[in-house]
Amino acid sequence: MGSSLGTLFSIHTWGESHGPGIGVVINGVPPRLSLTVEDIQRELDRRRPGQSKIVTPRAELDQVEILSGVEQGQTTGAALGLWVRNTDQRPSAYQEMQEAYRPSHADYTYDAKFGIRSVSGGGRSSARETIGRVAAGAVAQKALTQLSPGYRCVAYVKSVQHLQAEVPALVTRELVDGNMVRTCDPAKAVEMIAAIEAIRTQGNSLGGVIECQIHGVPAGLGEPVFDKLEADLAKAMMSLPASKGFEIGSGFAGTLMTGLEHNDAFYMDQGKVRTRSNHSGGIQGGISNGETIVFRVAFKPVATVLREQQTVNREGEDCTLKARGRHDPCVLPRAVPMVEAMAHLVVVDHLLRQRGQCGSWSQK
Amino acid sequence: MGSSLGTLFSIHTWGESHGPGIGVVINGVPPRLSLTVEDIQRELDRRRPGQSKIVTPRAELDQVEILSGVEQGQTTGAALGLWVRNTDQRPSAYQEMQEAYRPSHADYTYDAKFGIRSVSGGGRSSARETIGRVAAGAVAQKALTQLSPGYRCVAYVKSVQHLQAEVPALVTRELVDGNMVRTCDPAKAVEMIAAIEAIRTQGNSLGGVIECQIHGVPAGLGEPVFDKLEADLAKAMMSLPASKGFEIGSGFAGTLMTGLEHNDAFYMDQGKVRTRSNHSGGIQGGISNGETIVFRVAFKPVATVLREQQTVNREGEDCTLKARGRHDPCVLPRAVPMVEAMAHLVVVDHLLRQRGQCGSWSQK
Amino acid sequence: MGSSLGTLFSIHTWGESHGPGIGVVINGVPPRLSLTVEDIQRELDRRRPGQSKIVTPRAELDQVEILSGVEQGQTTGAALGLWVRNTDQRPSAYQEMQEAYRPSHADYTYDAKFGIRSVSGGGRSSARETIGRVAAGAVAQKALTQLSPGYRCVAYVKSVQHLQAEVPALVTRELVDGNMVRTCDPAKAVEMIAAIEAIRTQGNSLGGVIECQIHGVPAGLGEPVFDKLEADLAKAMMSLPASKGFEIGSGFAGTLMTGLEHNDAFYMDQGKVRTRSNHSGGIQGGISNGETIVFRVAFKPVATVLREQQTVNREGEDCTLKARGRHDPCVLPRAVPMVEAMAHLVVVDHLLRQRGQCGSWSQK
Amino acid sequence: MGSSLGTLFSIHTWGESHGPGIGVVINGVPPRLSLTVEDIQRELDRRRPGQSKIVTPRAELDQVEILSGVEQGQTTGAALGLWVRNTDQRPSAYQEMQEAYRPSHADYTYDAKFGIRSVSGGGRSSARETIGRVAAGAVAQKALTQLSPGYRCVAYVKSVQHLQAEVPALVTRELVDGNMVRTCDPAKAVEMIAAIEAIRTQGNSLGGVIECQIHGVPAGLGEPVFDKLEADLAKAMMSLPASKGFEIGSGFAGTLMTGLEHNDAFYMDQGKVRTRSNHSGGIQGGISNGETIVFRVAFKPVATVLREQQTVNREGEDCTLKARGRHDPCVLPRAVPMVEAMAHLVVVDHLLRQRGQCGSWSQK
Repeated sequence: MGSSLGTLFSIHTWGESHGPGIGVVINGVPPRLSLTVEDIQRELDRRRPGQSKIVTPRAELDQVEILSGVEQGQTTGAALGLWVRNTDQRPSAYQEMQEAYRPSHADYTYDAKFGIRSVSGGGRSSARETIGRVAAGAVAQKALTQLSPGYRCVAYVKSVQHLQAEVPALVTRELVDGNMVRTCDPAKAVEMIAAIEAIRTQGNSLGGVIECQIHGVPAGLGEPVFDKLEADLAKAMMSLPASKGFEIGSGFAGTLMTGLEHNDAFYMDQGKVRTRSNHSGGIQGGISNGETIVFRVAFKPVATVLREQQTVNREGEDCTLKARGRHDPCVLPRAVPMVEAMAHLVVVDHLLRQRGQCGSWSQK
Repeated sequence: MGSSLGTLFSIHTWGESHGPGIGVVINGVPPRLSLTVEDIQRELDRRRPGQSKIVTPRAELDQVEILSGVEQGQTTGAALGLWVRNTDQRPSAYQEMQEAYRPSHADYTYDAKFGIRSVSGGGRSSARETIGRVAAGAVAQKALTQLSPGYRCVAYVKSVQHLQAEVPALVTRELVDGNMVRTCDPAKAVEMIAAIEAIRTQGNSLGGVIECQIHGVPAGLGEPVFDKLEADLAKAMMSLPASKGFEIGSGFAGTLMTGLEHNDAFYMDQGKVRTRSNHSGGIQGGISNGETIVFRVAFKPVATVLREQQTVNREGEDCTLKARGRHDPCVLPRAVPMVEAMAHLVVVDHLLRQRGQCGSWSQK
Repeated sequence: MGSSLGTLFSIHTWGESHGPGIGVVINGVPPRLSLTVEDIQRELDRRRPGQSKIVTPRAELDQVEILSGVEQGQTTGAALGLWVRNTDQRPSAYQEMQEAYRPSHADYTYDAKFGIRSVSGGGRSSARETIGRVAAGAVAQKALTQLSPGYRCVAYVKSVQHLQAEVPALVTRELVDGNMVRTCDPAKAVEMIAAIEAIRTQGNSLGGVIECQIHGVPAGLGEPVFDKLEADLAKAMMSLPASKGFEIGSGFAGTLMTGLEHNDAFYMDQGKVRTRSNHSGGIQGGISNGETIVFRVAFKPVATVLREQQTVNREGEDCTLKARGRHDPCVLPRAVPMVEAMAHLVVVDHLLRQRGQCGSWSQK
Repeated sequence: MGSSLGTLFSIHTWGESHGPGIGVVINGVPPRLSLTVEDIQRELDRRRPGQSKIVTPRAELDQVEILSGVEQGQTTGAALGLWVRNTDQRPSAYQEMQEAYRPSHADYTYDAKFGIRSVSGGGRSSARETIGRVAAGAVAQKALTQLSPGYRCVAYVKSVQHLQAEVPALVTRELVDGNMVRTCDPAKAVEMIAAIEAIRTQGNSLGGVIECQIHGVPAGLGEPVFDKLEADLAKAMMSLPASKGFEIGSGFAGTLMTGLEHNDAFYMDQGKVRTRSNHSGGIQGGISNGETIVFRVAFKPVATVLREQQTVNREGEDCTLKARGRHDPCVLPRAVPMVEAMAHLVVVDHLLRQRGQCGSWSQK
């Protein structure tokens, strides 16, 4: 179960960073969606290494292949298989990690859990694992745009360490992809890029916050108790590598308000129920209310730093480790498409579940 | 699926606030655990209304009955049924809500989803829904203390609006339950209680943050990809009514550190792998590392305020609503046992899954 | 998971024969179905003990109560709780079974699995466990008749030991319920009843076969690989107490035909695709084809016989056991509503899944 | 969900007969099992086409590749990916099927469900789909032999049409694989082979029954209610292409016995609880009792016959179809490893679930 997500639209990922490749199997895809390799490749290109000077220079092209579930450009409704072959493998760069546990990585915990681990490249804990998520997310996005006209999901870097972006009234993908850090604030982008470049020269790393807006989600998605829409979004986001926090709508800052200030007053707008504020973040009682869904995800500074650190080895001896290899000084630019992918996956599953139980979704 | 949680140790809750009662069915309970009504009642008493002057005066005793799965004081391994009868129902207090949607409640979204809702008392969206969680959590706690000696989970109010508690090195349940707001800082408790009483007299409400520590979780629990331990904790906490945010270890503040500062150095301590800091919050790569698990949950100010608010009704007309009835001015004191219950449920499920797949768990 | 069934329309049963009662929680019920206690009671009355001279005289009325999920006669879409209180408990009749394992019962295997068992009345392995199934099946049936006009499911006793019923072209519930053995052949019913009464006087028991027809299932339900419609029907039927075999369409006899004889030729009938024969039993490639679904379930002679038998006890000693108590000499009359209930549950789940993934079902 | 099976040891298959290949992802594999390509290839060789003169001559070598989850000959505990590339694709042989529905195939029902289908080679309904099952079953078998010493599962052809094999006291794989029809009766094998060859020359096909014995399953596996061990075996077997019936132990013939005859008397044998007969087929109350598990599966004559048949086409017109191509005149020899694979998969999942909930399994 650990590599599976979703109830009706469910995905099952596989693959290690230094094996033959990385892939995903998707069940429950609605039939007769038009789907091409390009639809998926476009999103993978946004997460692949080597795309700019502020991400890891690992030279993977990450070309996706469709293995099953598509016939003449349309989904068949059967299991949809996707994979990306690994091409740039340098296991030798990882030899010293075979013994020493990298601090704040998964090396030690994998050993504690399984008694064995893939020492080359982190195995399953490598960031390459997210290829399957982004590929599946692209399929989910196709389903959503065809099933729910008006659906549009956009994520962007809200902050890099202390540098906070201004969020304009309208954030488009063009705006976000217009700068290599993928923030919504072109002016702040310059500072963010400079900060990332500076930290890289020190062999150190930075973290930050990504915000995500989902427009065009019909009211009525989500379940009353455990599978609340924000709960499933939280799980999806907290399952991303390096994420440390999730908040929706007003989030932690909302705890500083009183109830009267925080409540979102309803009003009628051209026959549609709307709210004047959106502290709820588009979800009330676990169910979407038709307003824009807004949430934020905290990403820690990446654990791989090219500096000597104290650690222990598999034999249980204290030692030091200085990592080599090609790594990201800041995960955020590449995490933007990951956040969007996870959002697509959660929303499409709830949309199909709503159609299954209740017949359709509100068009209010 | 929406009212079910867990893979091996799975719970299924039911019940509305104004029907015959509230209950839960638990599957996968390990057999031959000693379990009494008192084990469960003790936790329910901590969440019940009317326990102090700063919570709702609704006079429910919330007495639990065991319906199945226990024979002569021991669990049988079969489905364990628990329920609490509702006794203090006053549907008349809710009549005006039959039409007007309470702002930032689930009234509108339930209607949008189902086309129908339980108008009396909020139905499934009532806070009474959490009775099933707390009761099931008590069973999970019994399993954990018997399966993993040293297991101990304690939650406490970290802040009420702007009032921040100091967290001492050792937080015990005695300390937390020693004040009616359930904070870990007795001095700050006085201020918090005063603030809650003040806001109640204004018919308004407050929110805050609860922190939770889980001690004695063996290394190795959690799954590599989607069912990361922190992801399942996030989902569990974000499924609680009124929660708006979740963070683990360093959380959002961790985004302000560099990787070198944030990494938790490993060292050997009497044959055991330990970390010098705990920014990871006890989980690395989705899997517990044997350190204390620490996370925080943000709770918004409760939506029910006894003041006139703008809203709309089922007929799609703008209107006003002034709530009456008995409500909590601050959900936090009663949310402490809910947070603990959800933590127990997540950990016990992962502990059984680990035993299933890998045979046992690390005793390092 | 062991007490749960279904993906979207999922049920979770609980309760032992000699505890407070037996119940079920249903998730995923479509909202706004009209549902009354009578809808459910009608089916429970067909499975309850004491209804005729050929079933156990245990005097349970089995009155169902709705605990949640229904508001003013309509389902709310939230978890639907049902239960039946136990009233006629005579634990003393079971004392000798506390030690000796009843042959071909679950006593030994429960002990081997759990190391503990409910000694009074068989606990979870009692036939009373099926109350939850039949109650949930009644809800499923309501959903099906409202969602898929023309849906009609009828089961009947096809054979009691060597006595084989003739199956007329049209089998109605009135025909089946018109005789106390619930066969479709009133003439053969007389012989069957006589055989059952005779075996009872000997303290012995009989088995037989139940056949079930499901009319009005739209084409397109079922999944291509594991969750084939006949696979889920097989699981549902083989989970009933005392069932030993399942076959669909031509079944085991179909292995004696050649492919040319066995194939069901397609033809057009008033714009609808039909088959001239129905060896497929209404399902092809795991998916319904719009023809009547026909399957059979074998039930062994019930294990409880009032004669002395060789066995062993919990201490691992050879011994003898002569059962006392009130039991069914033949389970089949009461198993008819159980078979129908399981059929309803499987079909409604696949119908909702089909609507979720594909938007609707074929109206051909 | 439709292409997934299992709770803890879960598999997810993908692939069509005429796409790039066929594969499976396995979650929940116990870590540190030794596993090689040969372990898997050995089983695939038993199901591949072209292995003898009585199966389809399609010339696929079906060479398996491990994509993930194995490191230096040991399972890592992470998702295990396997696939087989398709090499012998002749889509042109299927052109006439693009329009006409093959009788008793899945062509029509796939169209009714999805509104689209893979016309070349049957797509997901091809027998090649079972490659993923057999490959995953080989991994399950490795886990079982390492976790439960004494585990041994052997299936064999019990009948081909009217030809019934004698079952000797000891059936070994060597005996079964010693004849190309894979029966346990070498004398009858000659007749069976002759019958299959004869029917092939007529362009027709035969069915039959496969029996399976599972030795060395510890007592205690299976769940009390829905996930009874025989229920999950039934589902697994009825999900195999062309299966029409399942029975365990005495099966349908057991309905002709009385309870006294049918009950399996317990006795002590060297400190172990045994039964004198095994009408139960090794499972009582849904849970294994330590005796040999014995069940049978009915397979219909394969639907592809090389003779002209009446049918309809996608346009809803009556027409005729005469299939060409390379097909099996009798599915049974190749279905033997499929039945074993499904048995392995069900047993290993229940074994891990038992270990998860109850800590271990009975060693009685």
